[in-house]
Amino acid sequence: MKIVQYAQRGPNPSEFIGAVDVATPTPGEGQVLLQVLAAPINPSDVLTLTGQYGMLPPLPAVGGNEGVGKVVAHGPGVTAPPIGQTVLLPVGSGTWVTHMLADAKKLMPLPNEADPLQLAMMTVNPPTALLMLTEFVTLQAGEWVIQNAANSGVGEYLVQLAKIRGLKTVNIVRRESAIDAVKSAGGDVVLVDGPGLAKRVAEATGDAKIRLAIDAVGGEATNRLSSCLTEGGTLVNYGMMSGQDSVVSPRSFVFKNVTLRGFWLAFWFRNATPQQQMAVFGEIGKLIATGKLKTRVHATYDVADIKQAVAAAAAGERDGKILVVPKD
Amino acid sequence: MKIVQYAQRGPNPSEFIGAVDVATPTPGEGQVLLQVLAAPINPSDVLTLTGQYGMLPPLPAVGGNEGVGKVVAHGPGVTAPPIGQTVLLPVGSGTWVTHMLADAKKLMPLPNEADPLQLAMMTVNPPTALLMLTEFVTLQAGEWVIQNAANSGVGEYLVQLAKIRGLKTVNIVRRESAIDAVKSAGGDVVLVDGPGLAKRVAEATGDAKIRLAIDAVGGEATNRLSSCLTEGGTLVNYGMMSGQDSVVSPRSFVFKNVTLRGFWLAFWFRNATPQQQMAVFGEIGKLIATGKLKTRVHATYDVADIKQAVAAAAAGERDGKILVVPKD
Repeated sequence: MKIVQYAQRGPNPSEFIGAVDVATPTPGEGQVLLQVLAAPINPSDVLTLTGQYGMLPPLPAVGGNEGVGKVVAHGPGVTAPPIGQTVLLPVGSGTWVTHMLADAKKLMPLPNEADPLQLAMMTVNPPTALLMLTEFVTLQAGEWVIQNAANSGVGEYLVQLAKIRGLKTVNIVRRESAIDAVKSAGGDVVLVDGPGLAKRVAEATGDAKIRLAIDAVGGEATNRLSSCLTEGGTLVNYGMMSGQDSVVSPRSFVFKNVTLRGFWLAFWFRNATPQQQMAVFGEIGKLIATGKLKTRVHATYDVADIKQAVAAAAAGERDGKILVVPKD
Repeated sequence: MKIVQYAQRGPNPSEFIGAVDVATPTPGEGQVLLQVLAAPINPSDVLTLTGQYGMLPPLPAVGGNEGVGKVVAHGPGVTAPPIGQTVLLPVGSGTWVTHMLADAKKLMPLPNEADPLQLAMMTVNPPTALLMLTEFVTLQAGEWVIQNAANSGVGEYLVQLAKIRGLKTVNIVRRESAIDAVKSAGGDVVLVDGPGLAKRVAEATGDAKIRLAIDAVGGEATNRLSSCLTEGGTLVNYGMMSGQDSVVSPRSFVFKNVTLRGFWLAFWFRNATPQQQMAVFGEIGKLIATGKLKTRVHATYDVADIKQAVAAAAAGERDGKILVVPKD
């Protein structure tokens, strides 16, 4: 079997990351051997490799935090999940591998007939989108929410989850060529970021009072997004794709009483009860399994091609996610 | 009588502001004539003149928003407050004048023996300091609060109000020469802003977990202040003395769950009940009248010298407030 390992962190992960061959382990008492079907490379994975993330594993580490696999061997005493069953890989377990051992009792079975690529992305981006949409401001059906980086995985999930709730979305992208994809995903209004954004948003929405803004870009984009909010609105930041700190005018938070918050899924995992987690992943799992929630896939790479895969994930202009899909 | 009037707004208020002579009015039924004793020039007054404030009066306008006066004539049917009584000028009434009419029933009497200069500043800066200290985070005695612009009027009130509540203050100033004044006012720790602030604050406070930061500077100063907060802390901004928008790293609000808020007294006035307003001004008035709450006065100017007064108030390096004190 192959695993993706790294022993350092730095600005160019392709230089130090690589797949290595290791002996395939035999499942022990209560364990199963899983064959990995798919595991995405999320922005948080790239930031973990560059050392910029809020939580870093001890080195050496195995890359990857989520994915799906299927059961290929049972250890002593194990009868379920059955051989061939698709299951969610344990979150944070180092998923850029061809195989892994797992505790049979802790595995969540997933529908075998659903697209494993879509299932592989269910634990990081969709709950991020869902929780930002629901945890900060209680929006009523018919209200608007505005987001930037709308062409991202989280952005696309947010458009779909908003629509399911009867909410309308203003979607900001950084290039003309991204507009069509966001419209196809169901975005109500799609605009290119830049000067006069608040005026253009007001025109496109009929002067809607927007109470929630979601920012993954940082820099001056945060300022432009907050200028679109109504008095008392909330801006939730979850990333800095621009590579720059957020800029916000005191005019927004002093004279418009705008609140700035951050969202990090790690805090939610730390504080949410098992019941709350079940509710979120139950809803998301069902929507993905039935094809109602999905995101585009830009390309897939074998474990052996991890250098290229990480480089593609780190590149700015993509139209969909990058996944590791181990070859048989 | 003289009033300070302006008919335009712009970057150099001294060019268009001036005192004009008008006829002294006679108080009507239920009115009194007040002689103004003192009226401060607050940063919000300067921003109103430059057009950068969140709320602008129609032009032409009379400058000044707070102050104290004494009753010098009664209109028909008026018996109180008595002639000679010191009273609070109605908030927002255009107080850079030698005299004004007021509704006798709405006047709040103040102790005649207290310093009119200190009383004149009671409705804007002290409630701003008090409410920022109490409305966002419930601090326990012994906890720390950090603020920048500690040498300002609000900063000095905040030091004193924190001490009364048993709180300790970390005070950030922008120049060495401001340190002594803030220490004299009771500041526990006083540091000059700049690189490595979080480390210096941690050393000076014994790694205190600081949950509330108060920012009046903006720009990178906001970022430095938020870097001093503990996980889940709140930064409240109420100004941009640097002239620059606030910069905050998503690392603060995403990975440390820091919340950014703004404070504007105008919103509080809009939403607070009369009882809440009475409680705040009751506490502040008593503290000022007994000399327990005060701020330094840099200079006073006659109404006729309003151009110089506004220029002095707009200048960066001051050691105390600027007030208009009409000559008899």
